Amino acid sequence: VALAPGSTIGILGGGQLARMLALAAARIGLKCHIFAPELDSPAFQVSAERTVAGYADEVALKTFAATVDVVTYEFENVPGACVSFLEPLVPVRPNSRALATTQNRIHEKTLANSLGVRTAAFAPVNSLTELRSAVTKIGMPAVLKTNSMGYDGKGQAKLLTVDQIEPAWLVMRDAPSIIEKFVDFACEVSVVAARGLNGTFAAYDVAENIHRDHILHQSIVPARIAEDLKIKAVDVSRRIMEELDYVGVMGVEFFVGHDGLYVNEMAPRVHNSGHWTQDACVVSQFEQHVRAVAGWPLGDPARHSDVVMTNLLGDDIRQWCELAGQSRVGLHIYGKAEARNGRKMGHFNSITPINKG
Amino acid sequence: VALAPGSTIGILGGGQLARMLALAAARIGLKCHIFAPELDSPAFQVSAERTVAGYADEVALKTFAATVDVVTYEFENVPGACVSFLEPLVPVRPNSRALATTQNRIHEKTLANSLGVRTAAFAPVNSLTELRSAVTKIGMPAVLKTNSMGYDGKGQAKLLTVDQIEPAWLVMRDAPSIIEKFVDFACEVSVVAARGLNGTFAAYDVAENIHRDHILHQSIVPARIAEDLKIKAVDVSRRIMEELDYVGVMGVEFFVGHDGLYVNEMAPRVHNSGHWTQDACVVSQFEQHVRAVAGWPLGDPARHSDVVMTNLLGDDIRQWCELAGQSRVGLHIYGKAEARNGRKMGHFNSITPINKG
Repeated sequence: VALAPGSTIGILGGGQLARMLALAAARIGLKCHIFAPELDSPAFQVSAERTVAGYADEVALKTFAATVDVVTYEFENVPGACVSFLEPLVPVRPNSRALATTQNRIHEKTLANSLGVRTAAFAPVNSLTELRSAVTKIGMPAVLKTNSMGYDGKGQAKLLTVDQIEPAWLVMRDAPSIIEKFVDFACEVSVVAARGLNGTFAAYDVAENIHRDHILHQSIVPARIAEDLKIKAVDVSRRIMEELDYVGVMGVEFFVGHDGLYVNEMAPRVHNSGHWTQDACVVSQFEQHVRAVAGWPLGDPARHSDVVMTNLLGDDIRQWCELAGQSRVGLHIYGKAEARNGRKMGHFNSITPINKG
Repeated sequence: VALAPGSTIGILGGGQLARMLALAAARIGLKCHIFAPELDSPAFQVSAERTVAGYADEVALKTFAATVDVVTYEFENVPGACVSFLEPLVPVRPNSRALATTQNRIHEKTLANSLGVRTAAFAPVNSLTELRSAVTKIGMPAVLKTNSMGYDGKGQAKLLTVDQIEPAWLVMRDAPSIIEKFVDFACEVSVVAARGLNGTFAAYDVAENIHRDHILHQSIVPARIAEDLKIKAVDVSRRIMEELDYVGVMGVEFFVGHDGLYVNEMAPRVHNSGHWTQDACVVSQFEQHVRAVAGWPLGDPARHSDVVMTNLLGDDIRQWCELAGQSRVGLHIYGKAEARNGRKMGHFNSITPINKG
């Protein structure tokens, strides 16, 4: 079942996640073919095989499917129609059901609740009238989000007072939406875990995530939360992945409330909060994802070091030379030409010996 | 002076060392342009920019020089004329003097001796008559080698008895040669170290090397030799690199004799006995070489783990799936189609926590 070295992984999307997947695949002798619409995609720099085409271009998708052994994707907003078109032609991992579920905040939360795990209280909202009624039922503070296609705080509006209801709805532009009550949480953590083609499961250690302006700033490993919460978070992640018959790496974000864990989001892909694995584990999340979708044995997720991952956004990247000179720092730069405000340009991992105290 | 992320490193040679250099360059946001004659070069798979041409093709070399910011090479047998042609057009690191010295066993040993470090007793040999006279002077057992262009035991003949002298000379095919007396050594070690554009120096820990059939089988780190020998080996390597005004990573091989260290060979490039750095250090020898030739600060060579590197030669590569399933093993596969006997197909690094005992 495992694809032999020399086989080709097709990747939909050409950003930094696809780039790091391609680098990880090359390490273990697998080739990649990057499919992305943007000519300056960072992943194109590290792959001999590429297709520049839109995700709706069925002629290009058909040729792509014929030249690769398996298809995966680097982002959850890949159009469902694209994956549905490919699935009869070539194995697509993770599968389209996993993609559809994680593309839809309502389905995502419903799945978590069905497994007995809490999420924020929520309600679907498709009109201003429904929004007013949902606010009454759920209460404030709350946040209104488009049900699909949002990331890093885009397509969101806070609801603290009744006079914010109407402007918030305007932000949604009539898109199917969801209202979520704020969870009063002490911190945010995530599980990055893999499920293999044969159903084996391997989780990296839980990461504690610090956000700034809705974008991940740092992941700290080990997370500073109780051991039983870590075990529960990993267990919940395992059950979500089993339920979806998932193959690949998934990132599951949790709020740690004063009364326990709440599932926040699931990402059907390698995850920013797993970048620390590149310098603190012998098999990174990127190699782990490639192994899973290629049908290989999963790698050992054990850590050899404690680690803090810090994102480099926009002009932060100007620190590259200073960071390059620091001890025990693994620096990663994504090959993007323009350092726009808030754009993810790179990250660095600071490792220290494991603190057994 | 440092080349900014987005700059392009030109690499002469397209084998596994070039491939791993290109992967390491991509990690820190540098592009590569691979120049190699063989269409199926493993490094081509991981680089968007490539030139398929011979090292004597001056038209191709000129275009190559115009599209890259610095040139380096993955092997010491790159023709001197190629580097001499490029050097006026673009910075070449390591420089042509370092290349010429390490391409010539006599120059190499003379350099070591001039720094007060022992080598095997040796003599240049250019005829059967000279060989007979050298054997009389140096004694046996000895080994006859071509003075240039040999690697992994190729172009060598053992001299144990006088009746082997004539057949040995036939193996050399009249090439300028060198006779070296056998060193009675307890083990072989190597230093993989880097020198930056500003003269800074950083050495990885000394590796103990086990050979099979003249090809590296394993590198064990830390090496099981006395601490003062390690310090001396690193110091000798530093002085060699300073003497050559070297920029980049160099591998220096030593015999550990009963009476101390002997320099065996110097390789002006990343070295097989430094592959362990990929999984036991935060900055690998490949990234370190890229940093040096790009004028970046050198990375921290500290180890976070003990490690044993094992080469996968020829059919050894069939173990890939079994190795992929082992704990704390970093697997590296080079993307070569054909597993010829003795061909380097990959390697794996087994890491363990640092043994402080």
